[in-house]
Amino acid sequence: MKAVAYIEPMKVEIQDIEDPSLELKDGPGVNPANVGRQCPHGVILKLVATNICGSDQHMVRGRTTAPPGLILGHEITGEVVEVGRDVEFIQQGDLVSAPFNIACGRCRMCKEGHTGVCLNVNPDRPGSAYGYVDMGGWQGGQAEYVMVPYADWNLLKFPDKAQAMEKILDLTMLSDIFPTGYHGCVTAGVTTGSTVYIAGAGPVGLAAAASAKLLGAAAVIVGDMNEERLRHARDVIGAETVDLTQEGSLPDKLEQIVGEPVVDAAVDAVGFEARGHGKDSDHEQPATVLNSIMEITRAAGKLGIPGLYVTGDPGAADDAAKEGSLSIRIGLGWAKSHAFTTGQCPVMRYHRQLMNAILRDRVQIGKAVNATVISLDDAPQGYAQFDSGVAKKFVIDPHGSIAA
Amino acid sequence: MKAVAYIEPMKVEIQDIEDPSLELKDGPGVNPANVGRQCPHGVILKLVATNICGSDQHMVRGRTTAPPGLILGHEITGEVVEVGRDVEFIQQGDLVSAPFNIACGRCRMCKEGHTGVCLNVNPDRPGSAYGYVDMGGWQGGQAEYVMVPYADWNLLKFPDKAQAMEKILDLTMLSDIFPTGYHGCVTAGVTTGSTVYIAGAGPVGLAAAASAKLLGAAAVIVGDMNEERLRHARDVIGAETVDLTQEGSLPDKLEQIVGEPVVDAAVDAVGFEARGHGKDSDHEQPATVLNSIMEITRAAGKLGIPGLYVTGDPGAADDAAKEGSLSIRIGLGWAKSHAFTTGQCPVMRYHRQLMNAILRDRVQIGKAVNATVISLDDAPQGYAQFDSGVAKKFVIDPHGSIAA
Amino acid sequence: MKAVAYIEPMKVEIQDIEDPSLELKDGPGVNPANVGRQCPHGVILKLVATNICGSDQHMVRGRTTAPPGLILGHEITGEVVEVGRDVEFIQQGDLVSAPFNIACGRCRMCKEGHTGVCLNVNPDRPGSAYGYVDMGGWQGGQAEYVMVPYADWNLLKFPDKAQAMEKILDLTMLSDIFPTGYHGCVTAGVTTGSTVYIAGAGPVGLAAAASAKLLGAAAVIVGDMNEERLRHARDVIGAETVDLTQEGSLPDKLEQIVGEPVVDAAVDAVGFEARGHGKDSDHEQPATVLNSIMEITRAAGKLGIPGLYVTGDPGAADDAAKEGSLSIRIGLGWAKSHAFTTGQCPVMRYHRQLMNAILRDRVQIGKAVNATVISLDDAPQGYAQFDSGVAKKFVIDPHGSIAA
Amino acid sequence: MKAVAYIEPMKVEIQDIEDPSLELKDGPGVNPANVGRQCPHGVILKLVATNICGSDQHMVRGRTTAPPGLILGHEITGEVVEVGRDVEFIQQGDLVSAPFNIACGRCRMCKEGHTGVCLNVNPDRPGSAYGYVDMGGWQGGQAEYVMVPYADWNLLKFPDKAQAMEKILDLTMLSDIFPTGYHGCVTAGVTTGSTVYIAGAGPVGLAAAASAKLLGAAAVIVGDMNEERLRHARDVIGAETVDLTQEGSLPDKLEQIVGEPVVDAAVDAVGFEARGHGKDSDHEQPATVLNSIMEITRAAGKLGIPGLYVTGDPGAADDAAKEGSLSIRIGLGWAKSHAFTTGQCPVMRYHRQLMNAILRDRVQIGKAVNATVISLDDAPQGYAQFDSGVAKKFVIDPHGSIAA
Repeated sequence: MKAVAYIEPMKVEIQDIEDPSLELKDGPGVNPANVGRQCPHGVILKLVATNICGSDQHMVRGRTTAPPGLILGHEITGEVVEVGRDVEFIQQGDLVSAPFNIACGRCRMCKEGHTGVCLNVNPDRPGSAYGYVDMGGWQGGQAEYVMVPYADWNLLKFPDKAQAMEKILDLTMLSDIFPTGYHGCVTAGVTTGSTVYIAGAGPVGLAAAASAKLLGAAAVIVGDMNEERLRHARDVIGAETVDLTQEGSLPDKLEQIVGEPVVDAAVDAVGFEARGHGKDSDHEQPATVLNSIMEITRAAGKLGIPGLYVTGDPGAADDAAKEGSLSIRIGLGWAKSHAFTTGQCPVMRYHRQLMNAILRDRVQIGKAVNATVISLDDAPQGYAQFDSGVAKKFVIDPHGSIAA
Repeated sequence: MKAVAYIEPMKVEIQDIEDPSLELKDGPGVNPANVGRQCPHGVILKLVATNICGSDQHMVRGRTTAPPGLILGHEITGEVVEVGRDVEFIQQGDLVSAPFNIACGRCRMCKEGHTGVCLNVNPDRPGSAYGYVDMGGWQGGQAEYVMVPYADWNLLKFPDKAQAMEKILDLTMLSDIFPTGYHGCVTAGVTTGSTVYIAGAGPVGLAAAASAKLLGAAAVIVGDMNEERLRHARDVIGAETVDLTQEGSLPDKLEQIVGEPVVDAAVDAVGFEARGHGKDSDHEQPATVLNSIMEITRAAGKLGIPGLYVTGDPGAADDAAKEGSLSIRIGLGWAKSHAFTTGQCPVMRYHRQLMNAILRDRVQIGKAVNATVISLDDAPQGYAQFDSGVAKKFVIDPHGSIAA
Repeated sequence: MKAVAYIEPMKVEIQDIEDPSLELKDGPGVNPANVGRQCPHGVILKLVATNICGSDQHMVRGRTTAPPGLILGHEITGEVVEVGRDVEFIQQGDLVSAPFNIACGRCRMCKEGHTGVCLNVNPDRPGSAYGYVDMGGWQGGQAEYVMVPYADWNLLKFPDKAQAMEKILDLTMLSDIFPTGYHGCVTAGVTTGSTVYIAGAGPVGLAAAASAKLLGAAAVIVGDMNEERLRHARDVIGAETVDLTQEGSLPDKLEQIVGEPVVDAAVDAVGFEARGHGKDSDHEQPATVLNSIMEITRAAGKLGIPGLYVTGDPGAADDAAKEGSLSIRIGLGWAKSHAFTTGQCPVMRYHRQLMNAILRDRVQIGKAVNATVISLDDAPQGYAQFDSGVAKKFVIDPHGSIAA
Repeated sequence: MKAVAYIEPMKVEIQDIEDPSLELKDGPGVNPANVGRQCPHGVILKLVATNICGSDQHMVRGRTTAPPGLILGHEITGEVVEVGRDVEFIQQGDLVSAPFNIACGRCRMCKEGHTGVCLNVNPDRPGSAYGYVDMGGWQGGQAEYVMVPYADWNLLKFPDKAQAMEKILDLTMLSDIFPTGYHGCVTAGVTTGSTVYIAGAGPVGLAAAASAKLLGAAAVIVGDMNEERLRHARDVIGAETVDLTQEGSLPDKLEQIVGEPVVDAAVDAVGFEARGHGKDSDHEQPATVLNSIMEITRAAGKLGIPGLYVTGDPGAADDAAKEGSLSIRIGLGWAKSHAFTTGQCPVMRYHRQLMNAILRDRVQIGKAVNATVISLDDAPQGYAQFDSGVAKKFVIDPHGSIAA
C-alpha cells in the first residue's frame, strides 16, 4: 500500500510499504520492545480521511529525532475491513474515528480517563500515538490502511454511515484537533459568558476558537501574526482577532475589545516553536506565548496549554531549550494564582459528545479549520503548503472516498 | 501599643506605635491610595496569638522591597474588642481567626471564592495581606492590637471560647499555615490512598504533611536538607522522609519507599528561595523544587505550589530571576500531562472545616508544626532562631493569654 | 407608591402603599422577627422591569398560606436611587439586577456559594425571597420602588446603562428565570453534545431550553400539553417538542427524535402542580413529572429539579401531598444510579456570566421566553393571562422606562 | 465444586455443581440471552475469600424473584488459576479483587467511569453483578471457583501476595462493602471536618462510618436499633451513636452530639427494608430512612444513598411499594436544596486507592465491619446468624486459605 514517509528535514514522500496486519512489525521508529506485538484486540481500517497535523510539522521541520522512513499520520478516520478475534463490539464495515492517543483500556491511567498517558502502549514512557517519534512505533495513518489496537476501547463508531459521510469533513476532526482545541478551552475554564484569548490561529487555535463558541464564551479573541489565518477566524468562526505584528501591547488590544486588559481564560495553541512579536519576530522565543498569556489572564484564571512543549529539541537556540527548559515568568503566574494544564488531550474524554454536536449541526468544525481535501499523492504538497502558513487543514483522502 | 517592625535586612525590633482604629492610617509600606480608608465594616482585635511565617522571612532577609518600619504579621487570632457600625454578626468578645488574605466579600473574586485575589483591598493589584510589602499596607498583626476590615466576611468565630483556648496552639494555625498546607495538597489532588511527596519540611511543609495524612494519603514523604525538621516530620507526623543531603537521586529514594520512582501528587512547600542539593547546595537554584517535583510526579499527576514565587526579587542571582523568570523544564511537565496550581491559599475556602477537625481532635496541627509560644518582646529572637532552621513554629503571645 | 398586592385566590390588585426605606417595616406576610430590621447595607431601587413568575402563580391560585395584602414580585431590575451608608461599591444611578434570593454575604451558606439558603435573612429557615409567603417578609418588587438589602453582595451592576437599556428585555431575566433554567440544566449535567428533555414549556422550561442550547446540547426536547407554548419552543428557540396530549408513550416519542428511548439529562420545569397526561390530564398528579423523567433518563444520568416542590400545600388532593410527600418511584431511579438536585437556583452563581452572554449576543433570552411588556396597572390582567397558559413572560414596566 | 445456592425463603444450601469455564453456561437465574456467551477475556479464580452481603439477604428473605438454585455471592477475592486468550495483563497466580459490578470496559458507561451500569453484560438493563437475580445470570462467587469476565478491566491485582494474605480480611472488603460505604460518603459530600449521619449500623453502615473517618469527618454518628452493632461502631470505629429505639427525636439526639439538630451530610445505609422507629418499629416503613435523613441534613447538604431501593418488591406492604414507589417528602428536600445520589457503587472508581490505604495501614476495614471467617460448609449458618442481626461480616474461606 501507499503511505506518507518522513525522509529528512522538509521532505516527505509517498512510499510503497507492506499492508498492515494485526501485529506490530518492525520499521523506522518502531520501539524494539514493541516489535512483534500481537494485536488480536485490533482491527484494520481502510482510511477514509487522515489529516496533516501541526505536530507532524515538528518532525518534518527536523525539530525531533524522527528517523527517515517513519510513516506519518495520527488523525485517523476509516472503515473497518478486518477484525481481530478478540474484538467484540466493533464490526466489519463500521465507520469509525480513532483517537490519536493509543490506549489499552486496561491500565490505571485508562481506567481513570487519562488515555493520553496510557501505561501499556509505549515501552519508553506513558503515552503513545500513531506515526510519531518516540511514541512506541505504531505505524502512522497517512496511508491506505492502518492497524488500530484495542479497537473496542479506542474506536468511536459513527451511528449512521451515510449521514457520517455527509459530514465527514467535520467528523475527521474528532481524531485530534477538535478535542484538542476543546480540551484547551475546558482546562482553561472556558464556560458560558467567558472572555477567552487563544494564542495561535493555526488549526488547533481555530478549533479552540470554535470550541470556545460552542462552550458559550462571550468573547473569543484569537491572536496570531498570520493575517490570512486571522481573517479566517473572523469570517468563518466569528471570533475577534489581534494581529500581533501590529504596534501596541496585547493588554491594550484586549482592552479595546473586552473593556479590560485581561481575559478570564487563555489557551496556548502554539507551543514551543513560538516566535517573538514585533522586533523579536525574526527568531524563536519558545516561552513567549506562555509568558504573554500569564500577563493577560486575570487573577484566579486558568491556562490551557494544548500547544506542544518537548523534552528534547535538537533545533533549539540554547542548551536549556534543547532539553525543554524555558525561562518562564512563574512569579507572575503565582501572584495571580494561575492554574496551568499541560499535555496531550485525552481524546476519548470528549469525542463522543463532540460527535453528537457535529451530527446535530451544533458546530461546523470542518469549516472552522478550513478542511481541504487532497489525495494521498498530494500529501507532500500539502505539507509544504501547510508549512507556508495557509489557513487550511489538509484532509488526505487515500481512496477517493470523500471526493466521490 | 507594641508591635514588631522590620528595620533592615536581618533586623526586626519592637516599636511603640499608635493603637489601630477603624481607619487605615499612613505608615511605612501603606499604599497611598489606601491612606484614610474608612472601615466601619471592621473590628479591632486584641491579639491572642500571632505567628511568625516563613514568608515574613523573605522580607526580613532583605529579599523584597519592604520599607523600614513596616509592621509585620499576617497570622492573626484574637478577641474582638471594638466593632464597627456595619458589622452585624461578629460581636465584642468573640474569639476569632482572621485569614491572612484580606478580602472584601463584595467583588467578583470574593463572590467566586477566590479571596486570595480580592479586587478591592489592594489598590495595586488583586490580593492583599496584613503586614506585607506591596499588599496594600494593612498594618501587621505581630502587635497588641490589629484592625480587621470586612469583619463579617473575613472572620471565623470559634464556637466556644474556653474550648478554643485549650486548643489555641492548633487554632492559631488556621489563619495561614494549616489552610496553606492543606490547599497545597488539595490542588495536588491528594486524596484517600495517594502517595505524596512534599518538598520542604519548614512549617508549610509540615502542615502539608499533616494535611495529607488528614486527607487519607497512603504514603506521605517529606524531603528537605534539614535533619532536625525531617526528624520532626517522622516522629510527630508519622511521615516518611528523604534527606536531600544524602547521596542518591530523589526517584531512587522514593522507589525505596513506595516501590516506584514516582508519586501521585507533589507539593512545593519551598518556593523561590530554594537551594540546590548535593554539590549545588551552597547556592540558590530557584527552580530546582519545581523541576524536581515534575520529575517525580507520575503522568497525569498534579502539582500544588503554595511555596511563594515572586515577581521581583532584588536578591536573585541573575537578571531573569530578579523579575521572577525561572528556567523551568516545562517540556517534561507537558510530556506527563501535569497540571500546576499556584498562588496564595484562599484561606476562607478551608478554615471552617479545618477548625471543625481541630475541635473534634482529628488533627494536632500545633504539634505537627511544633508550635512554640514566645512573648512579643522575644519576637526578634524568634525570627533569628527560625532563620537558623529550627523545627519550630513561633507563636507570639502579646498579652500572655496563652501562657496564662 | 403603587404596588401589586395579593388579595385572595385568583385576585391581585394595585394598591397605594408607603415608599420603601432602609428598614424592613411591618406589613402582610412580614415575619415578626424581621420587623424593624435596619438595612444600612441596602439600597432603594426604582424599578425598571419586574416580571411575573410562575411561582407567584402558586400564591395567586391559593395554593399557599400567603396573607391578603402581600406585595408580590421577586424578579427585580432597577436603578439605584438611594444608597445606605454602609454600601461601598454600588452607587446612585447604577442600573442593576437583584437575584430573587436575598442573601447576606456573611453566613456560612453565602460564603460557600449557596445563596439560595442564606442563614441570616429569613428568621424561620434558610432561604428567602422578595414578596413571597414564608420567606421572611421582604416587600415584593412589583411596585415602583423596592429596598434591596446587602446591596454590595446581592446586586449585579450592568457595565453600561445605555447598552443595558437596549437589551433590558433580556437582562430582566437575570433576576430569576434565566439562571433558574440554566441551573436546572447544569445540575442535570447538560454539556456539549447532550440530549436533554425538559418537562414543561412555561417560562422556566423555555429558559431551560435556551440554556441547554447555550450549553451546547445536541438535542433539546421540550414536553408540554400546551401547543402554543410548544410552538414557541420550536419556532423561537429551535427546540424539538413532544405534545403530551397526543397518543403514545414519552419513551417512544423520544426514540423518534433521538434514536433511543432515553436522554442524557432531564429537567423538571413543572413542579408540584403537575397534571397527569392523557386520560389523567384532568387532575393533578404531583409526582408525575419526577417519575416520568426517571423513566426517560439514561443510566447514570442526572435530574435537575428547579420546579418547585413545597412542604405544605393546602390545595393538594390527599393528606400526604398536603405536607409535601409524594409517591415517587425511587426504586427506578436507584436502579439507574440517578442523581437528583433540587431547590432554588442560587442566582449569584450564574448571573454575571449569563449577563456577559447576553451583552455579547450569545443568547436571546427575552425572545426565548417571549418577554411582553405591560404597565404596572395592567399587572392583574397579566396574571390572568399568564394563568390561562399563554406563551408569554410578562415584564412589568412601572415607570414607562422600557416603553420609552 | 461446592457452591452456596439459594433454595427458598430463609434457606440456602451447599450444592455440588460443575466447575466454571470461560463460557457463561445455563443455570438457575441465567438470562437466556447470556447462555453460551464466550469469555476469552475472562479468567477463573480460585476463591480466597467471598463474603456474605446484606443485599444477598434480600434474596434469601424472599424479597425478590430469585429462582431456586441460584448460586449466590458477589464479593470475590481470589487467585487466578486459568487465563483466557484475550487477557493480557492479568496472569496466572495473581491475587486479585473482583468488583461486584461486572463491567465490559468497552461501552460508553464504562468509558465514562460508570461501571455500575455497564451496557454490555446484562441483556435486560444496564448493570450487572455475580450471583444476583435479574443481573444477567453470572454465576455467584460463594463457591470454590468463579469465572470473571473482562479480567484485564475488572480485576485489581494486589502488588505482593504474601503482604496481601496478611491483610486479606481487609482486602476482601474491596469487592463491595468498603467502596460502597465510601461511595455513600463521597456522594454525600463528606470531607475534612464534616458532620455526618449514617443511617444503619449493618456492614455497609459500618464501612461508611470507617470511610467517613478516613475522609477526615469531624463527627461521625451512626443510628440503628441494634445495640450490638452500635456498640461495635463506638468501640471499634470510634463513631458516636444514636439508638433509635430510645425516646427522643433524631434531631434532638444529634443536637446533643454536634450542637445543632442537623448534620452536613447523610448516608442511607439501610434501603427499602427499613423499619419504623418507636411505636412503628414492628413493621416496615420503606421510606422512613430517606425521609429522616432529609429532616436532619442541613440546607445545601447532600444525601448519599447506597442502600438498595428496588423496582419490584413482592414482599412489600402495599401496591405502590411493590413496584418501588415510596411516599417521599420531596417538598422538604426541595426546600433545603438537597442533592441525592442513588445507585450501585461503581467499585472500580475507588478500589485501587482504598487498597493503598489498607496496605499502608491507614484504615482497618476488616475490624470495622468485624470480619469473621467461616468455611464454605458453614455458609448456611452464616446467613442465619447475619439475619439475626449480629455485628459480624461473614467471610467465607472455601479453601481454608485464610485459616491456614
